[in-house]
Amino acid sequence: MEFSAKQIAELIDGVVVGNPDVIVNNISKIEEGKPSTISFLSNPKYVPYIYTTEASVVIVNKSFVPDKEVPATMIQVEDAYYSVARLMQMYLDSKPRKTGIEQPSYISESATLGDFPYLGAFAYIGDNVKIGNNVSIYPNTYIGDNVTIGDNCILYAGVKIYHDCVIGNNCILHAGSVVGSDGFGFAPDKNNEYTKIPQVGNVVVEDNCELGANTALDRATMGSTILKKGVKLDNFVQIAHNAEIGENTVIAAMSGVAGSTTIGKNCMFGGHSGVVGHLKIADGVKLGAYTGVAGNIKQEGAAYRGTPAFDANAFARSWVNLRKLPDLAKEVRDLKQEIQKLKGE
Amino acid sequence: MEFSAKQIAELIDGVVVGNPDVIVNNISKIEEGKPSTISFLSNPKYVPYIYTTEASVVIVNKSFVPDKEVPATMIQVEDAYYSVARLMQMYLDSKPRKTGIEQPSYISESATLGDFPYLGAFAYIGDNVKIGNNVSIYPNTYIGDNVTIGDNCILYAGVKIYHDCVIGNNCILHAGSVVGSDGFGFAPDKNNEYTKIPQVGNVVVEDNCELGANTALDRATMGSTILKKGVKLDNFVQIAHNAEIGENTVIAAMSGVAGSTTIGKNCMFGGHSGVVGHLKIADGVKLGAYTGVAGNIKQEGAAYRGTPAFDANAFARSWVNLRKLPDLAKEVRDLKQEIQKLKGE
Amino acid sequence: MEFSAKQIAELIDGVVVGNPDVIVNNISKIEEGKPSTISFLSNPKYVPYIYTTEASVVIVNKSFVPDKEVPATMIQVEDAYYSVARLMQMYLDSKPRKTGIEQPSYISESATLGDFPYLGAFAYIGDNVKIGNNVSIYPNTYIGDNVTIGDNCILYAGVKIYHDCVIGNNCILHAGSVVGSDGFGFAPDKNNEYTKIPQVGNVVVEDNCELGANTALDRATMGSTILKKGVKLDNFVQIAHNAEIGENTVIAAMSGVAGSTTIGKNCMFGGHSGVVGHLKIADGVKLGAYTGVAGNIKQEGAAYRGTPAFDANAFARSWVNLRKLPDLAKEVRDLKQEIQKLKGE
Repeated sequence: MEFSAKQIAELIDGVVVGNPDVIVNNISKIEEGKPSTISFLSNPKYVPYIYTTEASVVIVNKSFVPDKEVPATMIQVEDAYYSVARLMQMYLDSKPRKTGIEQPSYISESATLGDFPYLGAFAYIGDNVKIGNNVSIYPNTYIGDNVTIGDNCILYAGVKIYHDCVIGNNCILHAGSVVGSDGFGFAPDKNNEYTKIPQVGNVVVEDNCELGANTALDRATMGSTILKKGVKLDNFVQIAHNAEIGENTVIAAMSGVAGSTTIGKNCMFGGHSGVVGHLKIADGVKLGAYTGVAGNIKQEGAAYRGTPAFDANAFARSWVNLRKLPDLAKEVRDLKQEIQKLKGE
Repeated sequence: MEFSAKQIAELIDGVVVGNPDVIVNNISKIEEGKPSTISFLSNPKYVPYIYTTEASVVIVNKSFVPDKEVPATMIQVEDAYYSVARLMQMYLDSKPRKTGIEQPSYISESATLGDFPYLGAFAYIGDNVKIGNNVSIYPNTYIGDNVTIGDNCILYAGVKIYHDCVIGNNCILHAGSVVGSDGFGFAPDKNNEYTKIPQVGNVVVEDNCELGANTALDRATMGSTILKKGVKLDNFVQIAHNAEIGENTVIAAMSGVAGSTTIGKNCMFGGHSGVVGHLKIADGVKLGAYTGVAGNIKQEGAAYRGTPAFDANAFARSWVNLRKLPDLAKEVRDLKQEIQKLKGE
Repeated sequence: MEFSAKQIAELIDGVVVGNPDVIVNNISKIEEGKPSTISFLSNPKYVPYIYTTEASVVIVNKSFVPDKEVPATMIQVEDAYYSVARLMQMYLDSKPRKTGIEQPSYISESATLGDFPYLGAFAYIGDNVKIGNNVSIYPNTYIGDNVTIGDNCILYAGVKIYHDCVIGNNCILHAGSVVGSDGFGFAPDKNNEYTKIPQVGNVVVEDNCELGANTALDRATMGSTILKKGVKLDNFVQIAHNAEIGENTVIAAMSGVAGSTTIGKNCMFGGHSGVVGHLKIADGVKLGAYTGVAGNIKQEGAAYRGTPAFDANAFARSWVNLRKLPDLAKEVRDLKQEIQKLKGE
């Protein structure tokens, strides 16, 4: 597909500075810009590239004032990053979505599919499954009995959803993600052997959630493990049985929330972070990477760091001091000697 | 299904207090109890709910003495939590297990299946595979050549077992778990390139083990990587080549055991924990979350914390002091000044 | 298969000490050696076993001088470990590789397979896919549209490669690994809801790379996420969008590299390590287990430890002092009292 700078400016409410008729047919990064591509400048670190890029068009923030000549045509917008996201989405939306049912696939007679499905080969749809409209289910995916899936969802290859789980509208589940595996519950007996606690609950994923590749959400012992609306999980995130993750909370890769813990809304967790079981974390809490929370956090918007975690600023100060700890220990030894001398006088 | 309080009490050797004829048809959490459901009270935190729950029946510990009227019928038992686990298991066992072989599936002519198999569509059974009785193999599962699987196992969707591995009786493998991938072994040459060390061993998983979703057990370089009887692994646990995990050891999510390390029996590892290679860890050792063990642990039942790990109580004391370290550093600066003054006198 | 000590010595340029005609038919570990097996001695820890092993043949380093009688026939070589790796590889290579196309599988009419393919049942090959010669694709594997795969690759069961990604020659992708899932990019709006940033780039895996079980490589927002030649990733490694991993860098299990970070060549990262986004890490950098890097590392070959990370030796000294920190705090309290006394005099 080809667009002129002028056409693109119209799509994103931008103002053209330079040749409005220059044609682009692809997207590029500004530092690797090639002729006939469109690029963007948002992060100030990349300003120098705008004077040398070979990209034909560059989307810039309205606030950007070049201090020498820019060879490319510029399109000025309110927020270049957001405009590019919109453009890329239009580009993706312009590609025809796969539809139809590839063979062989397995669809239980009691399952119902909505309108315009894509069902890849080797996908498995169990008994009484209900799937909404415009849902894409890639190959080698497993949907267990009695699962419900809303409209406009994408399940990439190899997703596995156990029986009785519920997925809302507009959700994206990346390849290899698992929804509804048994919670990790065992009762020890006197011989130190473990009896499995049956996990008879389910998982409910509300609207607009995204699950990264190879994530795992365990089903509840009773009731539901819940992702509220708009939760975004990166790859390898583990949500344990009966946990509840609040609206629009974002959790980076390799993080875990243990059983029966409730996380507030609008939280942001860094990579490799974790929260132990049976806790309550307030709204808007921020956890740094590798932060392990071992107690309730009641203060909204608090930032934590370390394992076990405490206030992030305090942690930063403590960590700086940890680096200097060998020096401090030496100073104390020296002081001791000085005092010995003083006492000897 | 419907049961009276009296019928349930008989199943779990309990004593009815209240109306023995009240009927329940589902399970609920005490804080969310609904009429015609059965609930339980085990954790003392939840005592207040027993006076308000709408559940019709509540299983309680014999030792529980209410201090006001309880609207529900109570069933008194020795251990409410354990009784509920038994009840839920009876409930699950009462549901008919899927049996039969769905099509299309792939079964090598040289493979043997035991009695009463369930084989989901798109499951793959390689050459010379031997599978015991009452084994459930969910869709999209891969069983490589020469694999042996015992009786009463459940392999959920998308499990992958490489050639030559052995799974015992009564094992549960959750969706996406991988057994028998190559150990991570490479020999560097003078050009800093790596030659792969072939991994010709296998993995042996003994009876009564459970593997969480998306776990990975690497095959041995030679010999076997071994999970002994009753090992329970949570999601995303990694067991490296030639490691051996002792009986009834329990490992929480996102933890790893590196190559050729031997873990004792009855150990408990917290989430995100890890043990480096070629070590020996005694029986009953407890690792806190995010604990990284870098040396042998010889003391049975020892508790460790931190990375690199040391005694858990000592770590707790050190960590409290780390939080106060900026203050300590200031105190030392102040002392220095005082001594300067004293010396100046 | 059976070989004499003499035949094996010829294969690995070794010198036989003892009976050259003794026959072996399997490999064993020296501490578990059985008659008619070949074993090796490389790690000095295992020297005592050479005097007692029942293995018929032991490969040893030329430099090894026994101080008593060795019952087994020895084969002396330059580097026993490397020779064993070669032997095991010869053993694996001697087994016939599976070839052919199992049914049912799904191959798009526009896809091209090279010579001598193995395609397992339930494997999916999308539109315009190009696959080189001698490639093994195990069952239940998904290859999305427009993917290119070089020669001599092995894709184990359940590998998922999203559209447009590129895999070089001689690569091994272990079961459950995911290549090309969306990068984790969202733009927050004023309601704290997130707009997805479309991820229109791809992943390029160059020659001779190995991906562990259940790894995940996210596609670039634009451009490519790149593994350069010879990169080896252990299980559960996460490489985020637009990251680039340098040649022959080796990353142990459960580690992650965040978005747009560039890692140099010949680096070695321990397990559970991580690097935050938009950083540059020099060649040859070594990260200990659980190391979380939060800033650029410019010094080639530097070793880091801790989270946030600093110099590994300094970290080791600080950590030793952390263990003794409660004592140090007490010393400071004591010094304070002594000074009080001195001031009182």
